[in-house]
Amino acid sequence: MYCFGVDIGGTTVKMGLFKEDGTVLDKWEIPTRTEDGGSAILPDIAKAIEEKLNAHQIDKKEVCGVGVGVPAPVTDDGVVKQTTNLGWGYKQVRQELEELTGLLAKIGNDANVAALGEMWKGGGQGNKNMVMVTLGTGVGGGVIINGKILTGTNGAGGEIGHIVMEPDETERCGCGKTGCLEQYASATGIVRLAKRQLAKFEGETILDAETVTAKDVFDAVKQGDTAAILIAEEFGTYLGHGLATVSALVDPAIYVIGGGVSKAGEILFDYIKGPYMDKAFFANKEVKFALAELGNDAGIYGAAKMVLP
Amino acid sequence: MYCFGVDIGGTTVKMGLFKEDGTVLDKWEIPTRTEDGGSAILPDIAKAIEEKLNAHQIDKKEVCGVGVGVPAPVTDDGVVKQTTNLGWGYKQVRQELEELTGLLAKIGNDANVAALGEMWKGGGQGNKNMVMVTLGTGVGGGVIINGKILTGTNGAGGEIGHIVMEPDETERCGCGKTGCLEQYASATGIVRLAKRQLAKFEGETILDAETVTAKDVFDAVKQGDTAAILIAEEFGTYLGHGLATVSALVDPAIYVIGGGVSKAGEILFDYIKGPYMDKAFFANKEVKFALAELGNDAGIYGAAKMVLP
Repeated sequence: MYCFGVDIGGTTVKMGLFKEDGTVLDKWEIPTRTEDGGSAILPDIAKAIEEKLNAHQIDKKEVCGVGVGVPAPVTDDGVVKQTTNLGWGYKQVRQELEELTGLLAKIGNDANVAALGEMWKGGGQGNKNMVMVTLGTGVGGGVIINGKILTGTNGAGGEIGHIVMEPDETERCGCGKTGCLEQYASATGIVRLAKRQLAKFEGETILDAETVTAKDVFDAVKQGDTAAILIAEEFGTYLGHGLATVSALVDPAIYVIGGGVSKAGEILFDYIKGPYMDKAFFANKEVKFALAELGNDAGIYGAAKMVLP
Repeated sequence: MYCFGVDIGGTTVKMGLFKEDGTVLDKWEIPTRTEDGGSAILPDIAKAIEEKLNAHQIDKKEVCGVGVGVPAPVTDDGVVKQTTNLGWGYKQVRQELEELTGLLAKIGNDANVAALGEMWKGGGQGNKNMVMVTLGTGVGGGVIINGKILTGTNGAGGEIGHIVMEPDETERCGCGKTGCLEQYASATGIVRLAKRQLAKFEGETILDAETVTAKDVFDAVKQGDTAAILIAEEFGTYLGHGLATVSALVDPAIYVIGGGVSKAGEILFDYIKGPYMDKAFFANKEVKFALAELGNDAGIYGAAKMVLP
């Protein structure tokens, strides 16, 4: 049997044709046409699927279905209420795609779907209770319980970036509220922490407060830069405490850390684990930490996994 | 078909004989014999079950099974690693009880099981994604996702009392760490907040800092006592922000609030909802709040529900 994994982004749709065991037979991209309320997106995907089935001479009877990750909250029955960058308002994505393709479809939030991909073939392999944390421009997340995505009532399960860390924070998170984990642990959050630290730091540092990036901070940490280490400690304290809270609620076996910030490598764990252990409930202390392994392909893997029997 | 619901506490074991539709045919208690490493507890339960089957002339073939709530983390396969007040160390509770009774058994953490009970026949009826928060001596919790208990890897899912609220707190929680939600939102936490507030409060109040209880605080709130209102606001801010974090992770449709503190009634929600809305992720704002309805029987209801087909 075969299946398709589709990851819809704001500019391109990543697509993969998989065998049941996770082997990738084909992998390609098509543009995301967001004009006209995004009305062409699903027909474009259906057309690409037809073409690949023809090209590989695969009959629809041999296909389990099409899994799709969408950058928006998605309910368990595949309904999207609102998107910020696809043009869609309320849309019954699963139903429309099933009608367009004649195949079973399952739809999930892109961060949740990526988490499932990392569980299946990436850094979380072998675990059925897993939390993925994506440290990019924002902080994304996905909670996997007993091998399934925790979707939640509104499709907003696993929004780790928006747990409350600093109720008295004065700057605003992208989501509109204040004090979210994302404001301290994303790439942009690390820059914020860096600017604050560098404004008061009085020693020597190779970091430039005007141009500093999250990558600069961890590169400087590796060179022993004191200011960078202070920034990394602050980042690690927020994220470690945040994950202690996540553990108290969903008690995962492993955290898989992905996104641009995770390119710093295992040195991240040096800053996260101490604060985590300090605030973790006794039953949660043996959790593992791993780096994500699938990069930008996590989405198509997880999407494919959703429709496997 | 019939089933048994059992709720093991430190001094008594509550037991119920249920019909599949939730009708209670019989309800009784036996003492919890914690001596000798609690070795008599499961045999006592098995004996009580046999007696009730005889008394009601029910054949074992007509029984779905025995559900049990235990005051300890319990894994999905019914294993307890450690208890603080039953005398048990590592114990394969499910397997032992199945051998003793010849019936299917399922074991869960007591707070999680009570949450399932409230979903089935209490304040959470009609919802399949629900979080129960028990405000008693401590803060207990249970997360129900798609109608099932979120158990977690170590049986420690739903430990809402131990999410991180104040990393810099100097006093210790019962769990050994500092800054847990339980330190601000339990009955004892409210007394702590009250003592701190009354030490600095300079107006008139009917509260006595020496003897104040959580009940006194909410009784005084209902009489318009300013100091009591300040304490209730502080309590509500911690709990509201804590639940905003819970929502970002598990996105429930409803919170069911139980435990001794919940006897204050719906006035609690006046203090929780504002801070919740202030810090809730946009997709989580329509959550409902309800009071628990089953009191001390939530455990036997939830235990029974676990073994229903």
